[in-house]
Amino acid sequence: MKNSRTSRRQVLRIGAAAMGGGLLARQKILGLESPGQLGTPLGPYGERSPYEKAVRWTRQSKTPETGSSFTPLQDSVGTLTPSSLHYERHHSGIPTIDPTRHRLVIHGMVDRPLSLSVADIKRLPSVSRTMVLECGGNSGSEWAATTGPDVQRSFGLVSCSEWTGVSLSMLLKEVGVRAGASWVIAEGADACRMERSIPLAKAMDDALIAYGQNGEALRPAQGYPLRLLLPGWEGNSNVKWLHSLKLTDQAYMARDETSKYSDLMPDGKARIFTYRMEAKSVITFPSGGQTLPGPGLYELTGLAWSGSGKIDRVEITTDGGKSWMNALLQEPRLPNAFTRFRLPWRFDGREAVIASRATDETGYVQPSREELIAVRGTNSAYHFNGTKFWKVHADGTVTNVEV
Amino acid sequence: MKNSRTSRRQVLRIGAAAMGGGLLARQKILGLESPGQLGTPLGPYGERSPYEKAVRWTRQSKTPETGSSFTPLQDSVGTLTPSSLHYERHHSGIPTIDPTRHRLVIHGMVDRPLSLSVADIKRLPSVSRTMVLECGGNSGSEWAATTGPDVQRSFGLVSCSEWTGVSLSMLLKEVGVRAGASWVIAEGADACRMERSIPLAKAMDDALIAYGQNGEALRPAQGYPLRLLLPGWEGNSNVKWLHSLKLTDQAYMARDETSKYSDLMPDGKARIFTYRMEAKSVITFPSGGQTLPGPGLYELTGLAWSGSGKIDRVEITTDGGKSWMNALLQEPRLPNAFTRFRLPWRFDGREAVIASRATDETGYVQPSREELIAVRGTNSAYHFNGTKFWKVHADGTVTNVEV
Repeated sequence: MKNSRTSRRQVLRIGAAAMGGGLLARQKILGLESPGQLGTPLGPYGERSPYEKAVRWTRQSKTPETGSSFTPLQDSVGTLTPSSLHYERHHSGIPTIDPTRHRLVIHGMVDRPLSLSVADIKRLPSVSRTMVLECGGNSGSEWAATTGPDVQRSFGLVSCSEWTGVSLSMLLKEVGVRAGASWVIAEGADACRMERSIPLAKAMDDALIAYGQNGEALRPAQGYPLRLLLPGWEGNSNVKWLHSLKLTDQAYMARDETSKYSDLMPDGKARIFTYRMEAKSVITFPSGGQTLPGPGLYELTGLAWSGSGKIDRVEITTDGGKSWMNALLQEPRLPNAFTRFRLPWRFDGREAVIASRATDETGYVQPSREELIAVRGTNSAYHFNGTKFWKVHADGTVTNVEV
Repeated sequence: MKNSRTSRRQVLRIGAAAMGGGLLARQKILGLESPGQLGTPLGPYGERSPYEKAVRWTRQSKTPETGSSFTPLQDSVGTLTPSSLHYERHHSGIPTIDPTRHRLVIHGMVDRPLSLSVADIKRLPSVSRTMVLECGGNSGSEWAATTGPDVQRSFGLVSCSEWTGVSLSMLLKEVGVRAGASWVIAEGADACRMERSIPLAKAMDDALIAYGQNGEALRPAQGYPLRLLLPGWEGNSNVKWLHSLKLTDQAYMARDETSKYSDLMPDGKARIFTYRMEAKSVITFPSGGQTLPGPGLYELTGLAWSGSGKIDRVEITTDGGKSWMNALLQEPRLPNAFTRFRLPWRFDGREAVIASRATDETGYVQPSREELIAVRGTNSAYHFNGTKFWKVHADGTVTNVEV
């Protein structure tokens, strides 16, 4: 990636200390006057530094087993989410499942119903795919008149992992889907047996049964030992703790596809089965709650993704939307995955209103909040993908724009 | 990826249970006769399943602060290594560094010496890069007459992460490297102040100063808060806890580039400054110590990588090297990163001797152990990249070939 906007002479005018070349200065700065002390021993399983404190923020609910916990995007770097910080959305807590006892049953309108153990599935041809999961309710608070104060609470129900598993279409071909079947009802093994209706066409296209995440087994909060993965589709339809796939000729009209995860439009009708997540982006630095220590050079950076494929372009404004500049995009850009975008920016100590706007490979452009509301109204709690503005105040503090 | 070798009819002949379609059978298999119990609550920082036990294996040494710990490659999936399982090689333990007090000093034969805080560096234009780190001593035990019994202990000093940081060349242009300087001496802030001499050409090419790993801050065992990254070069030269870069006109001939990490050849001369790691691969499943439960279909899988760029081809033998087949390669294939390879294989219950052989984009072919020894002799402890054979016994157990 070339940085054409900032000369290298500008780059280090950031407060770095120039220093004399003498030995004394070096020793003092490096702390070499004190003898080195042995560090901690090697160990079987590593942990992060005690100086790193980022954690998920959990939205309070009536029971601790239901609710959402949000990824600290403001501390993210690169394009992946650490598994320990992947967002969560559970309806009856995280079951503790013995993988040697778990089975995936494929039944209903099929010729040869099957019951597969996790070990059976791990023997089959596998694939890996880096992709985002985003809760259909992510940024739901942005529909309100006052938008969210920080990126974690307003955009943090999205995370990106490398997943490994087997193609669902391979399993469906094996069981023999009967003529007339058009839906797959996916059910989880959590206490509420959460279920969603998945069109057969999606199941036969790119759906995976995943058992791996970021190089190891799925995490319990992400569906251990098996999760349905539907690239580009809202998180809720990617059923965790998957234990049943039933072929049917109609949708189940389950709770989470009727009263929930649907969009009540201005005319009183609801959009339902709105699975695919549209292109979206957000600036993670600087973002609400952070403070710039003073004028000078910074790197504006954030994340973009689309349920419809690759990100082709991210534009950034620093003047409240009057003008837009192309950001640099980290390669490789993978479909449905996080694309990290970056742009050097000189904060001159005057108020700036910043935002990002993504365009995906279909040509779809992330709308403004106002454009989205003009079409969808304000009854919705789901599927918000409008641009997110932050206000950088003259003193370097960063807030939502209503402050 | 297309699987052309195995018809879908074959795929599920793996012991999966055919089942009747009745409700009773489904309830019994899913365990639905018992009421669902609420799972564990949402939380700030996730952990893996208590059923997942893979940990690093630590080679015993005289002090717990020095030595190596090995990634459990036999349990790996996909192309990344979980940060908690990244291999370690330390010479005086893992320092606990306060990032607000740490500095990187660039000095020596430069016009404008600089002292940078971690915060300074995070303001600069950044890049992310997925790449392998491999200890120069990885597979050192394979030089011996009896090769290693499992993939963790024989090949586990290699791991792959997504790293994020800034270009070292940008910093070097800023300090103004003086004419005549040809080396950069990199020094860590661990107790032994481990140091390595890096040719200036590499530092100006693709070297990074990394502060991020797999979406979060570097782990302490990987150099928190700053690490030198030299794509494709032996792990030891990627100095952890980096606090000093000194420009010089000669190498330091440090301990770890003279008595260590060099290769004593049959004629008594030593190869030194052998930084670049050559193409290598290994089958991770099935591998030594694992047991196949019986004849039938399995997926042979493993990892390939090269310090010289992308992996172009991985071949697999199941007859001890008489014939070789092309494995399927997971996309995207990234330079210097793990490439996951896979091949469906039917174990017929007769002894099989299996191995993999990688070819990188330069055309370099991973040598056999015998070819390597013919050139390098057996005095070496470093830079072993020969093919690794496993013996699958008739009873399904898997060992090294000498058993």
